[in-house]
Amino acid sequence: MAKSNLDLVQECDRFPYYQDDPAAYTTHMKNYHSFRVKGYDLVLGYILNEVVDRFDWPKEFWTINPAERTVTLLGSTPAERNQAVAQTLATAVKQDRFEVLRGWRNELYPVFGPGGEFLLEMERCASPLFGIVSYGIHATAYVEDENGLRLWVPRRSKTKQTYPSMLDNTVAGGMSTGERPYECLVREAMEEASLPEDVVRANARAAGCVSYTYVRDNRAGGETDLVQPEVEYVYDIKLSADVIPKPNDSEVEEFCLLTVEETKEALARGEFKPNCAVVLIDFFIRHGLLTPENEKDFLEILTKIHRRLEFPTASHVTR
Amino acid sequence: MAKSNLDLVQECDRFPYYQDDPAAYTTHMKNYHSFRVKGYDLVLGYILNEVVDRFDWPKEFWTINPAERTVTLLGSTPAERNQAVAQTLATAVKQDRFEVLRGWRNELYPVFGPGGEFLLEMERCASPLFGIVSYGIHATAYVEDENGLRLWVPRRSKTKQTYPSMLDNTVAGGMSTGERPYECLVREAMEEASLPEDVVRANARAAGCVSYTYVRDNRAGGETDLVQPEVEYVYDIKLSADVIPKPNDSEVEEFCLLTVEETKEALARGEFKPNCAVVLIDFFIRHGLLTPENEKDFLEILTKIHRRLEFPTASHVTR
Repeated sequence: MAKSNLDLVQECDRFPYYQDDPAAYTTHMKNYHSFRVKGYDLVLGYILNEVVDRFDWPKEFWTINPAERTVTLLGSTPAERNQAVAQTLATAVKQDRFEVLRGWRNELYPVFGPGGEFLLEMERCASPLFGIVSYGIHATAYVEDENGLRLWVPRRSKTKQTYPSMLDNTVAGGMSTGERPYECLVREAMEEASLPEDVVRANARAAGCVSYTYVRDNRAGGETDLVQPEVEYVYDIKLSADVIPKPNDSEVEEFCLLTVEETKEALARGEFKPNCAVVLIDFFIRHGLLTPENEKDFLEILTKIHRRLEFPTASHVTR
Repeated sequence: MAKSNLDLVQECDRFPYYQDDPAAYTTHMKNYHSFRVKGYDLVLGYILNEVVDRFDWPKEFWTINPAERTVTLLGSTPAERNQAVAQTLATAVKQDRFEVLRGWRNELYPVFGPGGEFLLEMERCASPLFGIVSYGIHATAYVEDENGLRLWVPRRSKTKQTYPSMLDNTVAGGMSTGERPYECLVREAMEEASLPEDVVRANARAAGCVSYTYVRDNRAGGETDLVQPEVEYVYDIKLSADVIPKPNDSEVEEFCLLTVEETKEALARGEFKPNCAVVLIDFFIRHGLLTPENEKDFLEILTKIHRRLEFPTASHVTR
């Protein structure tokens, strides 16, 4: 059956809302421990109880409180915390405790405290185990000419670990510690779509962000039900018809220039990676292609794809 | 002191969030009764306790439960409910119980149940007393040429009941029962800015919506602290430099074509009506003028101006 746009959004923003059913929400929260850092009165992520049980938590690095369901990382500096996390993860990898850790990327994701204070970083593939917020960029390259608006859509490689063969956004990538959104966009545009830096700088425009709390399912690979709150800064890249994105590594199979109608059909068939669907829906709304008059769930969609996360988030302002 | 964009957003989206401080939120909610309709298990708005005390609630129309803090409207059809509300309001007007009711507009605002079911309607100026969601449209007309991007900004008349002399969006207006967003845009564009229908239809583009929960302050006129959740469908109207909006009634004093810098300065000085500031901030984000790199509160702003309201909302889809 064809998926509605709200179905697609709900596949991505899957975590419950307190306001929808306070009692059910409170019950649901018993499935998690909150991830904390000593000395800060705040929650940095939700760790599934099964994950808490399966980790070894060396006492010199961690305090686990089963009654309050908290996992508190000790250490008083980012360096101390990073070392504690790295060592804990190394043990888990050695013992092959988690499927998601088999996808080790050697990329570090930052965790922020209030006011964007840098608290620690951890290996990217471990972030869903801790339920921390991750940051990335998604860019939609498009052509708008006498043939109407058409979008450059890549298909992911069959051999990719996550979401093999699904459709994707033209350019997308995660932001490691210290990286800025625009910088990440420029880097990924070359790495994934062979778009040269000068073309990107001349044509890319920041257009907001989407945020949602994903809960991992089978398609993501590895353990399911892990919580993955995400912030994706979105960019539009308007290209002339003679600029053609090309795969630059083994991650992308091919790029196709799809009409809006073809893109909508592929969305309805569930061919897009879930968070790419969300970015396209945001693109369609901003470009007047989805309107209050033709999308019955207009308001629900817009609010869910701009979810206010319950964790401190980064500021990527250039000082 | 100059107001930040987040300050401006917070002047508009003033209602607390559960997730920020569950205990404080629960305490705060004791200030309100929930507005309900018999036969539906849902909350339609928040009524300040003082407002509950000051109204007469005829027993044939209403059930007040002080322990549960609920105000339930009886009647089993929209017609019955409308009559009950109209009669209750007429009594309050006659007795001059509320300042806000002195601004009677003879415009009816709809209230929706689950799935956009029409439940009742009430006089526009009474809606903040019941804390119901209201709907409107805001359009930003702009010129983008060799002189850069400039925005058509009207100044409200000195004699306007609400927010006199403040700056406004090019076109803005509330949607009465039965009205569709685009239709409302076309009507208001002529009424407020003398923009002919063909110019609007050729140049206006839907661009999403903003939603927030306003809490009335002095500038709104009448009782303060009333809750006013709002949805504003936003439109961009790109005009050539020779199309000049003009006041068409006594509500607007004049239109000025402001540069982005001039608009930002007027925002920082607090010259814009609060919800117009929010619409402009959304415009700046969508047009790449506010970015994650130059706006430190980027994410917090985007999520607050797309607040997920805790009440059922309308669907304005054309069937």
